[in-house]
Amino acid sequence: MYAIGERINGMFRSVGAAIGEKNPEPIQQLARAQLAAGATALDVNVGPAAANPLAAMAWLVKSIREVTDAPLAIDTTKPEVMQRGLELAGPGSIINSTKGQQEQLDIFLPMAREHQASVIVLTIDENGIPRDASGRSEIALRAVAAAMEHGLDLDRLMIDAVILPANVAQPTAGHVLETIRNVKLIAEPPPKTVLGLSNVSQGTTQRALINRTYLVMALAAGLDAAILDVLDTAMMDAMITAELLMNHAVYCDDFLRAYRSSQ
Amino acid sequence: MYAIGERINGMFRSVGAAIGEKNPEPIQQLARAQLAAGATALDVNVGPAAANPLAAMAWLVKSIREVTDAPLAIDTTKPEVMQRGLELAGPGSIINSTKGQQEQLDIFLPMAREHQASVIVLTIDENGIPRDASGRSEIALRAVAAAMEHGLDLDRLMIDAVILPANVAQPTAGHVLETIRNVKLIAEPPPKTVLGLSNVSQGTTQRALINRTYLVMALAAGLDAAILDVLDTAMMDAMITAELLMNHAVYCDDFLRAYRSSQ
Repeated sequence: MYAIGERINGMFRSVGAAIGEKNPEPIQQLARAQLAAGATALDVNVGPAAANPLAAMAWLVKSIREVTDAPLAIDTTKPEVMQRGLELAGPGSIINSTKGQQEQLDIFLPMAREHQASVIVLTIDENGIPRDASGRSEIALRAVAAAMEHGLDLDRLMIDAVILPANVAQPTAGHVLETIRNVKLIAEPPPKTVLGLSNVSQGTTQRALINRTYLVMALAAGLDAAILDVLDTAMMDAMITAELLMNHAVYCDDFLRAYRSSQ
Repeated sequence: MYAIGERINGMFRSVGAAIGEKNPEPIQQLARAQLAAGATALDVNVGPAAANPLAAMAWLVKSIREVTDAPLAIDTTKPEVMQRGLELAGPGSIINSTKGQQEQLDIFLPMAREHQASVIVLTIDENGIPRDASGRSEIALRAVAAAMEHGLDLDRLMIDAVILPANVAQPTAGHVLETIRNVKLIAEPPPKTVLGLSNVSQGTTQRALINRTYLVMALAAGLDAAILDVLDTAMMDAMITAELLMNHAVYCDDFLRAYRSSQ
């Protein structure tokens, strides 16, 4: 499982403050802690409050690059901020994210190709978030066609079927699982699947329990990657165990430690 | 989810001792505790050491019936012990279990019909446990044909795809998930699916973690019932949360308590 650490996000108070004060220490510490906890990549989001998102992203990426070469997921909707983040982060980055309408795909897919990046396409288009799995799968199919058109390898395309909070959109969890299974049948090799996991528990009273339970369900449905809180040890234990049961890692009595130390 | 409590089993020392001493107290307490923890039914197994299995089963069932009318899963391979257990437990019981070869089905399916019981059919036949999902699904299909032949309603047929310990048969977990999905497509309405869950973690170092992770995966694949340790609170929390995410129960902030008190 490709685990993308979600914690370097200006939305979190300590990160927002570090960006405001141009203090790299807390950012670099979060980068190290997430990698040590099993993150394969790190999400980087300046947050909604950044006065100058372009400058903030540049500073964030440079600060992180002082301590690690791990892949970064540049998390912004603004093409110019994305472009700058990718330039500074280097090849192997992730564009997080674009919606599925053609004009957005025509901006971000060529950008992914140019920067040897992967790109997360949300199953959202000009009509919003589809109500069911077939609407989501249609957008995924359109993204696959666009990737082929733009010469982007399908294993650099990551479909995010957009999980919504269980307390306000309860049927969505099932629709997203069905979409993940559908996406794995779209092409050979299929595109990757990814989720912004924490959204499933937004506003609920049992966030950690809901997050880790849904991660296990999605992983069993074929999920390849997730943006998640890798510092949640119980969730990472559940993820590692699900990987084991899916036969993605070989059993040994000390499989939790073995998985972590193999990262 | 139909949760069948596994704890009244002579294999457990305290239960074996209670059977030997004909002391109903520990048995009745286990019955009450499992029902309070969310069990819908109780498995009843005299264990391998019982000197007189027929008498032991009769005593066990009578002892349990003094404190609850909950459905009992009579857990024996011996037809005469099964027969006696079903007579004493009453309608709505579960035959646990029969293998899938014709001569076994021809004994236990009519018995299920006669006693208005459900019957668990293991996907094992004269050739043993099939190596993959298609072999398991074939035996399930044969059980469905036999149930129709014997006039047993398909919702009284419970297919157990036989999970094996992850440390010795790692690919099995995936085969069983695939079988569960297949079984739900065999007929309309489909037969029920069930697992003897704890077997997945037999001999491993992380039993509880593996049990609850696999339960969530199987539930997402369509599992209807499991024989499991309902006294494991973390597992029941995971099960209830998976039910919520599958939209089998309505979200409320206090959903864990709401589910338990609805049982």
